[in-house]
Amino acid sequence: MLSRRLFSTSRRTLGGFEPSLTSQSYPEIKRNPNFALITGQDVSHFGTILSRNSIIDGISPENNASEEDLAPFNVDWMNKYRGQSQLVLKPKSTSEISKILSYCNFRKLAVVPQGGNTGLVGGSVPVFDEIILNLSSMNSIRSFDPVSGTLVCDAGCILEVVDNYLAERGHIFPLDLGAKGSCHIGGNVATNAGGLRLLRYGSLHGTILGLEAVLADGTIMDALSILRKDNTGLDLKQLLIGSEGTIGVITAVSILCPRKPKATNVAFFGLPSYSHVRKAFISAKEHLSEILSAFEFMDSAAQKLSCHHSGTRQVLEQDHPFYVLIETQGSNETHDSEKLEAFLENVMSLQIVSDGVLAQDESQLKSLWKLREFIPEACSKSGGVYKYDVSLPLDCLYDLVTELKNRLVDAGVVGENKTVVDVMGYGHIGDGNLHINIPVRHYSKEVASLLEPWIFEWIGLHNGSISAEHEHDQANEGHKGSLRPQWNFESV
Amino acid sequence: MLSRRLFSTSRRTLGGFEPSLTSQSYPEIKRNPNFALITGQDVSHFGTILSRNSIIDGISPENNASEEDLAPFNVDWMNKYRGQSQLVLKPKSTSEISKILSYCNFRKLAVVPQGGNTGLVGGSVPVFDEIILNLSSMNSIRSFDPVSGTLVCDAGCILEVVDNYLAERGHIFPLDLGAKGSCHIGGNVATNAGGLRLLRYGSLHGTILGLEAVLADGTIMDALSILRKDNTGLDLKQLLIGSEGTIGVITAVSILCPRKPKATNVAFFGLPSYSHVRKAFISAKEHLSEILSAFEFMDSAAQKLSCHHSGTRQVLEQDHPFYVLIETQGSNETHDSEKLEAFLENVMSLQIVSDGVLAQDESQLKSLWKLREFIPEACSKSGGVYKYDVSLPLDCLYDLVTELKNRLVDAGVVGENKTVVDVMGYGHIGDGNLHINIPVRHYSKEVASLLEPWIFEWIGLHNGSISAEHEHDQANEGHKGSLRPQWNFESV
Repeated sequence: MLSRRLFSTSRRTLGGFEPSLTSQSYPEIKRNPNFALITGQDVSHFGTILSRNSIIDGISPENNASEEDLAPFNVDWMNKYRGQSQLVLKPKSTSEISKILSYCNFRKLAVVPQGGNTGLVGGSVPVFDEIILNLSSMNSIRSFDPVSGTLVCDAGCILEVVDNYLAERGHIFPLDLGAKGSCHIGGNVATNAGGLRLLRYGSLHGTILGLEAVLADGTIMDALSILRKDNTGLDLKQLLIGSEGTIGVITAVSILCPRKPKATNVAFFGLPSYSHVRKAFISAKEHLSEILSAFEFMDSAAQKLSCHHSGTRQVLEQDHPFYVLIETQGSNETHDSEKLEAFLENVMSLQIVSDGVLAQDESQLKSLWKLREFIPEACSKSGGVYKYDVSLPLDCLYDLVTELKNRLVDAGVVGENKTVVDVMGYGHIGDGNLHINIPVRHYSKEVASLLEPWIFEWIGLHNGSISAEHEHDQANEGHKGSLRPQWNFESV
Repeated sequence: MLSRRLFSTSRRTLGGFEPSLTSQSYPEIKRNPNFALITGQDVSHFGTILSRNSIIDGISPENNASEEDLAPFNVDWMNKYRGQSQLVLKPKSTSEISKILSYCNFRKLAVVPQGGNTGLVGGSVPVFDEIILNLSSMNSIRSFDPVSGTLVCDAGCILEVVDNYLAERGHIFPLDLGAKGSCHIGGNVATNAGGLRLLRYGSLHGTILGLEAVLADGTIMDALSILRKDNTGLDLKQLLIGSEGTIGVITAVSILCPRKPKATNVAFFGLPSYSHVRKAFISAKEHLSEILSAFEFMDSAAQKLSCHHSGTRQVLEQDHPFYVLIETQGSNETHDSEKLEAFLENVMSLQIVSDGVLAQDESQLKSLWKLREFIPEACSKSGGVYKYDVSLPLDCLYDLVTELKNRLVDAGVVGENKTVVDVMGYGHIGDGNLHINIPVRHYSKEVASLLEPWIFEWIGLHNGSISAEHEHDQANEGHKGSLRPQWNFESV
C-alpha cells in the first residue's frame, strides 16, 4: 500500500553531487593487505561462470566500464558513502554465486554482497576495491501455496514486486517499509528489518520458515524448509537473520505470509504529553487488540519539519506537543470501524488525546502516513543529520530526546545560526523503537562529541539497545568480515 | 484455560510399575568412560554451593537418599525411561547453576538438566549416573510490564502458574499445551514447544525477546533483553531456542505476551474426507482470519479411541471419516460470533462439513477440547504405542496415514488379535503438523521394522520434517553432548 521508490539511478551517478570516497572520509580504515588485487585473469574466470551481460568490468581494457557505469553500485542511496570497486557481478543463480565465492575465497578477493542498496549505514557499498556481488538478477518467485500462505522466492526479489504478487493471491508480505519499491527481500532478512507493522505481523525470526545461503567458501546451505514447524537440529538459519552478510550471502527465502486484510483504517491524533502517548497505546491495545497494525508517534518538531518540507499542511488545526498515527488492519470493515469507535470514545472521553482525524478514503490514508514517513527525508533537508535508531523501555523512551536536547541547548549549539537545527523524536511505540534525529546545518566535531558516547551510555544505563533495526541490504564484506563498524542510523 | 496435571509424583515412584533401566533397554549405548564417577567429596563441594535441602544425595552414607526419593527424577512421566542417578541438585539461582556447571566441567562430571520432566522422548532423565540439575526451585517471576506485555521469569516457572499470573494482569502466555500444569518455561523454550495456538500467537523464535543461560563451563550468558527490537550483533539466543540443552542451561526468559482474549469460541465438525478438511481450513482463514486461534483435526479412528477411553460420548450423532476442532480468540464477543456465523454459513452451504456443534458455555468448550487432547493418552491404553510427530506440506499430509495403514494391513499385522490395534492421524492442520500414532497390544520388532526407516524415507521424499515439535524439557546431557538419539514422539 505504501510504496515509494526511494531514489532514481541517476541520483547516484557522477552527474549529480559526488560524495567523498569512504576511504577518505574514514582515513583510519585501511585496506587489508591480505586481500588480493583483482586481475584481468580473475575477470576472465568470472566470464566462464557468468554471461557477458552479468559483468560490469572496469578492469579489462577490452570491456572497460566507465566510472559512471560503476557509480550506481559504488555509491549508497544517501549519497554518503563511495567505494572504488571496478567490478560488479550479477549472478542469476545460487550455483553461480557458489562458484564466485568459492573462487574469491581461493584467490582471497574481497566481496561486498549488495541487494537493493537502500541501506543507510553504507553496508551495501564497497570501501575499497571489493568485488560487488549484486543480487538484482536473482529475482524469481519460486513458489507460493495459497492454503498455507508459504512463499519461496529469490533473495533479489524487490519487496514491492513480491507484495503485489501476493496481493493478487489474497495475501501480503509480513513486512512493510518505506523503501519497499527498491529494497530486496534478501537484504530485509540479512538486516532483520522491522518495518512499519512488526506490531501486527511479528519479527522475521518468527515468520521466516527457511533460508538458502552461500557461505564464504562457496558451500550452499539449503535450509529452505516450507514447514511451519521443523525442529530437527539447531535452527542455524536464525543466525543468518540479521547477520548482515557476515555469515553468508542469502540467496532464497521461505516465509509465512498472512492473508490480505479486507479493511484498513488510519487515525491521527494530537496529544498533550508523552505520558498521554503511552496511555493511548494502552487503550489501543485494549480496544483494537488483534486489528492494531501500527502505533507510530512523532513529536511536534518532527511533525512541523515533515509538513514544511513535504509541502503538506498540518492535519490538525492547533499545535500539539505529540502526535500519534494509529492503523488497523482486519478482515471485517464493520467490526473494525466499531472497534475504532470504541477506542475513539475511550481516548476522547478520558482526554488522552486533544484532537484527531480519521482517514475517510485511501487518499487521506496515504496523506496521513506521508506525514510520518516523510520525516527521515525532511530531517536531511537542512544540510546534514545525525540519526540514531534505538530501542528503549517505553516508560523512559522519550526522556532520551528531552535530556539530549537539554544537553545540546546547554552547550549553546542549538538555534538559528547555530549548528543544530533541533532535536526530534519519532518512531514505532508499539515496538519500543525510537528514532532520534538531530538535523544540523553542517556536520561538526563539537556536536559529534556532545552526542557520542553520551547517547550510547544513556541507552546502556536505561537497558536499551543502540541498534533497534538494521538496514535493508546484505551488508558489506559479507564473507570476509566487516571492514568497519556499523552505524546505527534509522530506516523508516 | 486448558489445564491438566499430567502425572502425580507417585506415578513415578517404585511403588507402581517400574520401567526397565534405559541402559538395559538400549544396551548399545555405553557410558562414556571420560566422565568421572561422583564421589563423596564432590557432594561435599556441592554442599558449599547449595543449601542442604537443595540436594538429594544417594551417595554420602550420612545423607543416604533412598531409591524412592530419587525415582521421581530418574524416571520420565511416560514411565518408559529410567536412569540411575544418585544425586539431584536443585539450585535456587543462576549463580548457583554457574558454580555447579563450572565445577562439573572441571571434574568431568556428566549432568542432565531437568525441568518439569514432562517430555516424551526421555530427554529429561539420566541414562547412567549423571547428576540431575533440576530447575524447579528457580521459579520466580522477575518482572512484568503491562504496557509492553513483556514478562521476565525464571526457567523453572510452571507454565500454568505464569499463565495465571498473567491472566490476573489481562495477558496470556503466547504458548499453551496439555502439559501446562507441570511443564517449565525453560523446557518449553529449550525444546521450542509449538503447542495448541502457534497458529495465532506464533513461534517462540518470534516471541522470545531475551534469554539468560549458563554454558557448559559455567559462563553466564546474559541476553535477557526486554526490547522488542534489538539488532546488536548476531542473535545468538535464537540458537538456544530448540537446542534441548546441548548449548547451555536456560535459566531465565524474557517474552512478549499478548493481551488476554475477551471471547473464546470452539466449534467441532464432522467432515467426509481429508480434502474437505483442507477446504474448511481455507474457509476458516478467510472468514475467521485474525481471530482463528486453533485448527485441529483427527481421523475417525482417533476420535473413537479418545471417546472410548475418556468415557466421553461422541459429540456428533453419526460417524464421520474426519473431525475438526476450531477455536477463535478475539477482543469482541459480538464481532467474533458474527465472524463465526459467516464461517459456518460458508462451510455448511458448500457442504464442506457434514455436521457440527458450537460450544455454548465454558464446560462444553472444555469437553470439545478434551476429545482432541485426550487422544495421546487414549492411544497408550491398549498396551504400547508407536508415535511420530512430523511436519508435512498440507496437500499430502494425510496420505502418510493412509499409506502407512495400507502397508501394515498388507503385512497382516493389523486387526483383532494382531499386534497393531490401528493407525491413526491427528494434529495441528494450521501448522502442517501431523501426529501419527500406532497403538499396539505389545511392542514388536516386526512392526518396528515395518515402520522405520520407511516412515522417515516417506517424509523425506515429501519434503517433510521428522521432528515437528520437541519435547517439553531441557534435554539430557545438556553440556556434554547427547548420549543417544532423540526420538520423534508427539506431545500434545
